[in-house]
Amino acid sequence: MIVETQYTRFDSLTLDCGARLAPVDLAYETYGSLNADKSNAILVLHAFSGDAHAAGISRESGTPGWWDSMIGPGKAFDTDRYFVMCTNVLGGCRGTTGPASINPATGEPYAMSFPVITTGDMVRLQKMFVEWMGIARLLSVTGGSMGAMQAIQWATDYPEMVVSSIPIAGTWRHSAQQIAFNEVGRQAIMADPDWNEGNYYGGKPPARGLAVARMVGHITYMSDESMREKFGRRLRDRDKFGFHFDIDFEVESYLRYRGSQFVDRFDANSYLYITKAMDYFDVTNGNGSLAAALEKAIARFLVISFTSDWLYPSYQSLEIVKALRSRNRDVTYCELQSNYGHDAFLVDVVEQTDVVRAFLAGTYAALSRKAVAL
Amino acid sequence: MIVETQYTRFDSLTLDCGARLAPVDLAYETYGSLNADKSNAILVLHAFSGDAHAAGISRESGTPGWWDSMIGPGKAFDTDRYFVMCTNVLGGCRGTTGPASINPATGEPYAMSFPVITTGDMVRLQKMFVEWMGIARLLSVTGGSMGAMQAIQWATDYPEMVVSSIPIAGTWRHSAQQIAFNEVGRQAIMADPDWNEGNYYGGKPPARGLAVARMVGHITYMSDESMREKFGRRLRDRDKFGFHFDIDFEVESYLRYRGSQFVDRFDANSYLYITKAMDYFDVTNGNGSLAAALEKAIARFLVISFTSDWLYPSYQSLEIVKALRSRNRDVTYCELQSNYGHDAFLVDVVEQTDVVRAFLAGTYAALSRKAVAL
Repeated sequence: MIVETQYTRFDSLTLDCGARLAPVDLAYETYGSLNADKSNAILVLHAFSGDAHAAGISRESGTPGWWDSMIGPGKAFDTDRYFVMCTNVLGGCRGTTGPASINPATGEPYAMSFPVITTGDMVRLQKMFVEWMGIARLLSVTGGSMGAMQAIQWATDYPEMVVSSIPIAGTWRHSAQQIAFNEVGRQAIMADPDWNEGNYYGGKPPARGLAVARMVGHITYMSDESMREKFGRRLRDRDKFGFHFDIDFEVESYLRYRGSQFVDRFDANSYLYITKAMDYFDVTNGNGSLAAALEKAIARFLVISFTSDWLYPSYQSLEIVKALRSRNRDVTYCELQSNYGHDAFLVDVVEQTDVVRAFLAGTYAALSRKAVAL
Repeated sequence: MIVETQYTRFDSLTLDCGARLAPVDLAYETYGSLNADKSNAILVLHAFSGDAHAAGISRESGTPGWWDSMIGPGKAFDTDRYFVMCTNVLGGCRGTTGPASINPATGEPYAMSFPVITTGDMVRLQKMFVEWMGIARLLSVTGGSMGAMQAIQWATDYPEMVVSSIPIAGTWRHSAQQIAFNEVGRQAIMADPDWNEGNYYGGKPPARGLAVARMVGHITYMSDESMREKFGRRLRDRDKFGFHFDIDFEVESYLRYRGSQFVDRFDANSYLYITKAMDYFDVTNGNGSLAAALEKAIARFLVISFTSDWLYPSYQSLEIVKALRSRNRDVTYCELQSNYGHDAFLVDVVEQTDVVRAFLAGTYAALSRKAVAL
């Protein structure tokens, strides 16, 4: 399945902070076919550093999508049955408007004059896209990590448009620890003199700071056990006392490689804006109980977490499940066994596929019965 | 109890890497009195960023020692009964020779020409100090975190000198995850242009990189729960959309404060050398089983870990306990309930005091009976 990222443009988008972005570009991909009554559409929401290329092989880069193991013919999100869409997030750097985009008012990149964005803003732009596609209601909204936060925001902000929601390895609000890890990444970027208050476009980007930020991220995405299995204490260079502070252990070489690789495909200012949006995320907006906030949703929920995920631990998913149950909402919870930590939603797909496939089939069948009854 | 750090100098120290440091300065403090038969001496080993000022109030700075809650009259390490010593570690920057010290061969600071050091080297210097103090055998060696690693190294390298060992919140070897967190800190320092390949003495130190490294450390020292209790999602600045990327959450302000505070009291090159020594630490030296390595020890062991410590999790302490038991060594294990994460050994001292006090009293009584029997 060869795919191409497509682009569209919207006149304007009003943000939670009151600012208005105009115009707003959006990158997207679609897989499978929309059925006649437009009842089989699924919106997939990417994680922090993802993009619109969720499945298939990119014509441009030749690489598979970030969730290619889950999306395709016969897979969890079966493109023989469903029409799957994925968009690059607002504030991103992979085709959708973000801090690296040109501000039409100045002819220069927005950089740090880009307005503060929230998860609500990201979802609002996705809703414009879904409506532009002529789709009134989504069979499902789903994603892991930051995508899970958006899947919850969708169900509470636009309840009539969401038949089901599948938040995976997510949370209903960022915790102090999650904020802290993001803050370290931001500080690493902003400590790099090449960041230059965000004005590095056309010059040298803050590659060292961004690489350090990514290294912190990678540790939090893995588990103690998956790191041990992958690297143990294997030495990269046998002559370990030979050269000071070069790479001794394989885990060091892996982190440095992933850090430097990230610099080629991600914009440091997007890192700042998107992590802030995650940190602001709290589906209650700080007012009232979680149950009261989730009560607005009418979607069926499938909530998934992973045993070894210490960045978005299962207790955070369980709080969502309990709150939904307390308001008699239709919710299924699966804590899946995995050693892969937070990365599990990307790599440990066998059990995940089973529960997602069954949940979607049940949701689709119920929707069809309801349509026939009407 | 007003205390003063004291200093002594040794002619030379030969290191595991083959290099020889000459001379070697050492900073130390002592509390309580050595008894007539010199049987009541305890050596306390500090954690990564600690120093020789473990207890009492410093005459110089007016601050209490880092383990003042555990060391003093009537406390866990009761200075009415025991003679307690603490030294600044080799490679440090608080009075003991480290990368910031003057290399007598050049008249300049060693900087990155300082030789690579190991936990074995740190302990070898401590042994020279103990012998210089005229003490042939230690009633106990103890410490948390990096201090725990040294307490294990002492018991295996100099078994005849160690009556008991109390490793707290430690490990017998650094795991891939522990190495990874240290590597991120090192990369943050080395990414700072002010680091200048380590040659910043007399100029501007790599303050931004060191602060970022310390921020990562602080997150790993706390638990998800202790961060939630301490900070939650409290906003520092109520007008959260007012000023971009300034401090929104209290946890951010705390981390930035602790990061910048650290810069005033710690040397970035010491950070590099000491974290490397921790990463190299493996009491088996990569050869044979843990049980075979620990069999060399003849000390009684009290191994302590804390439930919420995810940086040095309980399973690592349990591996030590199981290995010692498999060779019929005298070992007691206590996993203490705490929400404070790795910091628990410094702050959650009530239960820790009970188990340490009883263990030391039993060890001292057994030693006295043995002496009488002889």
